[in-house]
Amino acid sequence: MDKRENSIEISKTEFQKIGYQLIDTISEFLDDISGKPVTTSKSPKELQEVLGNASLPKEGKPAEQLLASASKLLFDNSLLNGHPKFFGFITSSAAPIGALADLLAASVNPNVGGQILSPIATEIEKQTIKWLAEFIGVSPNYGGVLVSGGNMANFTAFLAARTAKAPKDLKEKGLSNNSKQLISYCSKSTHTWIDKAAILFGHGSDSIRWIPTDDSNKMNTQTLEQTIKEDIAQGHQPFMVVGTAGDVSTGVVDNLEAIAAICKTNDLWFHIDGAYGIPAAVIPELKELFNGVEEADSIALDPHKWLYSPLEAGCTLVKNPKHLIETYSSHPEYYNFSLTEEGGSLNYFEYGLQNSRGFRALKVWLALQQIGSDGYVKLISEDIALSKYFAELADKHSELEAVTQNLSIATLRYIPKNLDLVGEERTEYLNTLNETLVTKLQEGGELFLSNAIVKEHYCMRACIVNFRTTKKDIEECIEIIVKAGCEIHKLLIQQ
Amino acid sequence: MDKRENSIEISKTEFQKIGYQLIDTISEFLDDISGKPVTTSKSPKELQEVLGNASLPKEGKPAEQLLASASKLLFDNSLLNGHPKFFGFITSSAAPIGALADLLAASVNPNVGGQILSPIATEIEKQTIKWLAEFIGVSPNYGGVLVSGGNMANFTAFLAARTAKAPKDLKEKGLSNNSKQLISYCSKSTHTWIDKAAILFGHGSDSIRWIPTDDSNKMNTQTLEQTIKEDIAQGHQPFMVVGTAGDVSTGVVDNLEAIAAICKTNDLWFHIDGAYGIPAAVIPELKELFNGVEEADSIALDPHKWLYSPLEAGCTLVKNPKHLIETYSSHPEYYNFSLTEEGGSLNYFEYGLQNSRGFRALKVWLALQQIGSDGYVKLISEDIALSKYFAELADKHSELEAVTQNLSIATLRYIPKNLDLVGEERTEYLNTLNETLVTKLQEGGELFLSNAIVKEHYCMRACIVNFRTTKKDIEECIEIIVKAGCEIHKLLIQQ
Repeated sequence: MDKRENSIEISKTEFQKIGYQLIDTISEFLDDISGKPVTTSKSPKELQEVLGNASLPKEGKPAEQLLASASKLLFDNSLLNGHPKFFGFITSSAAPIGALADLLAASVNPNVGGQILSPIATEIEKQTIKWLAEFIGVSPNYGGVLVSGGNMANFTAFLAARTAKAPKDLKEKGLSNNSKQLISYCSKSTHTWIDKAAILFGHGSDSIRWIPTDDSNKMNTQTLEQTIKEDIAQGHQPFMVVGTAGDVSTGVVDNLEAIAAICKTNDLWFHIDGAYGIPAAVIPELKELFNGVEEADSIALDPHKWLYSPLEAGCTLVKNPKHLIETYSSHPEYYNFSLTEEGGSLNYFEYGLQNSRGFRALKVWLALQQIGSDGYVKLISEDIALSKYFAELADKHSELEAVTQNLSIATLRYIPKNLDLVGEERTEYLNTLNETLVTKLQEGGELFLSNAIVKEHYCMRACIVNFRTTKKDIEECIEIIVKAGCEIHKLLIQQ
Repeated sequence: MDKRENSIEISKTEFQKIGYQLIDTISEFLDDISGKPVTTSKSPKELQEVLGNASLPKEGKPAEQLLASASKLLFDNSLLNGHPKFFGFITSSAAPIGALADLLAASVNPNVGGQILSPIATEIEKQTIKWLAEFIGVSPNYGGVLVSGGNMANFTAFLAARTAKAPKDLKEKGLSNNSKQLISYCSKSTHTWIDKAAILFGHGSDSIRWIPTDDSNKMNTQTLEQTIKEDIAQGHQPFMVVGTAGDVSTGVVDNLEAIAAICKTNDLWFHIDGAYGIPAAVIPELKELFNGVEEADSIALDPHKWLYSPLEAGCTLVKNPKHLIETYSSHPEYYNFSLTEEGGSLNYFEYGLQNSRGFRALKVWLALQQIGSDGYVKLISEDIALSKYFAELADKHSELEAVTQNLSIATLRYIPKNLDLVGEERTEYLNTLNETLVTKLQEGGELFLSNAIVKEHYCMRACIVNFRTTKKDIEECIEIIVKAGCEIHKLLIQQ
């Protein structure tokens, strides 16, 4: 065994050959992306047939052949969130440099869980975190960690908040020993992550107070204050408030300044879920909307949303990173956590839930440099302008209604001409019509949008975090939507 | 804005040019990896100087220039776990096809959180899970999910175990409402993940029973039984037992069959932490060592360890996947979780902690096909043979002692000739000597190993999950270790 013959190694010339081929097919795929359907029309069952039901192969196959067939399989049977008419959920059109960065990261394969395992990668992640903090306008002394996405970014902060505010023996004794229930507060339109967090981390979903929103869909801060008082009176222990900066349904930003003040008064942890929207704080005209951000104890921000990173790239920023260490490290006494101290090393496994960690910082770090903060101001402003244009065109159109428009999210409804229903019957019919329309559009492959429920109205929802989208795409989408809406209405009234 | 001019898009010809360049530098890097130092000798402080302390740039830079300088920065300042003399921790030498797979995955960018967002990617992940179950010899009806790594793989199972065994109102009421403490059991050599799980999920570290090991370093199953009885008598609620299949210090596999029987008797969830070692179950001669694996309610298995995947690729397998749905889904009633039912779709966000998810299945799926199960049998057997060879050579050498050898992990000590210390003084001296030696070797860059404490003896620890390592590497490592040990001993006795 002086030389190991094996099927896993790829020689230099072979790697070049396969690599060039893959680069070619990807470059053609990206170049042609607007000409493809946004998604496949095949059902899960049909896709299973395409894939086949083979057992794990005993014998290996050449890498070249596997990559060629996998490329074709993916290009023909995927939803393409890089398509200029993709506005669904909040998955960005990903920067091509991010894909090349992932290739480089996986080739070097640093384990960014420990400094010793990832010497320069750890430093690059630190710099990325510092840049993200600068970017959204908080102190570069915030520390943090890159995580898989929004759930994990918010979870990481939730647990830090608990450590900071709960009794000190929680680590040993657990929650069942705690006589007071630990309560968290958020607006009714907060993302499902908080429900999952409360359940998984042992608090139970009953420990969440879903504060109603006001007319503008922001958390009602008077009710928030009142609810906190009531909980204290009942012997509970409030510990954190979540302000949402860009809710996923309509893009509304809570009154962060007011929430910050309430947290200060009541000694609560102030977390901002800015997973989607907080990069908009970089736009000078929107700065005011994000007042209070610098008061946050923690912030979730997902580069794979509005910073156009490929999946996975979420981020948790924490004002005082010692709260991360105290939550996630088992031996803080050996640990030098000062980011400013020269020569201090940092083991990222002590900053979050993961132990081994990939080098997701590289794609974020490279994109930040390729685009620059000015470039992001331009891209994000344009996404917002396009969303406004979407709403404007909808409002001008006799069969569409723009329902909300905030940040880069527009919600709209199709309302057929001469609909003679009134009251509840009308509402119900329009809900059914628009729900059917969303499904039909998603299946059609011409564009992709998702839905939102706004004041019990079922709406189409377009979130633009897509550097490939143009005004022309929006105009064409309006036509596609109206055409499909009209057809569905005809079918529905026939029934 | 009919055409968006921006700094993020890369044209087809530019993508090809940059891509070819990157493929070239990576192919040279991989080809030359054995000629490079295993790691950099620069301190964190020096690396920070290399990186510089710039603020987030305002203006963008060309992708070509950024990727070229990033490649050089990483190649020169990283620990190379792909190096044939890397045996530290348990990070594999990663399959080159995995890096190309990550490029492809990030280019298509499917969000494998929902079926609708990732039509074919979801099917590929399902097939990958099925193949992994087949591979380690459990029923292909196990379901599961790919996660970031060992911590998350074990966490995902821990929470499923709790849902299965805890009172049904846990989701709403949380742990503070539970009158009984939920207790988990594991051997003393279990990885730190269980401590983190107990703390983060609200149980508290006091809820773990660290069962002592017997002479062979396996969990003492008599003590396990006894402890469960005592806990029940004291009014606690035992809920899960963790059997380790390949502990990270010495590679020992617990008596899984005995643990399975105890779990059955006591209605406890049986989880196997096989993150590192369970792929060895594929070796016919080792099959018996893993008897009982098919009884596991859940299994953690990390493709980025012994299946040679680049980071991140962990995996949780669960005998009855409905326990995942019940733990992670908020609306199981709408959900068709049967993997066997034709046409059933599966939304992976309902299988684990993440919501948005990257396409980490692709690199695992492609490597499984490139290597094939026969190829894995060969690679894993060779790693084990090399580890045995390491121990043999150490035992033959007058200044080395092999302490343990299991699976692909050998632990050894340097013991200088004519050392005239005895008793505790000798033990202490050898611990200091070997600890200094590990640090010195890690800094030296000729090889990379880590450490283990075996019966209070500080040992060097070499874990071979490395398809590039040969017998010659092992022979050279013995020389490097003895030379460094000798030098350190001379320095230490002079003091």
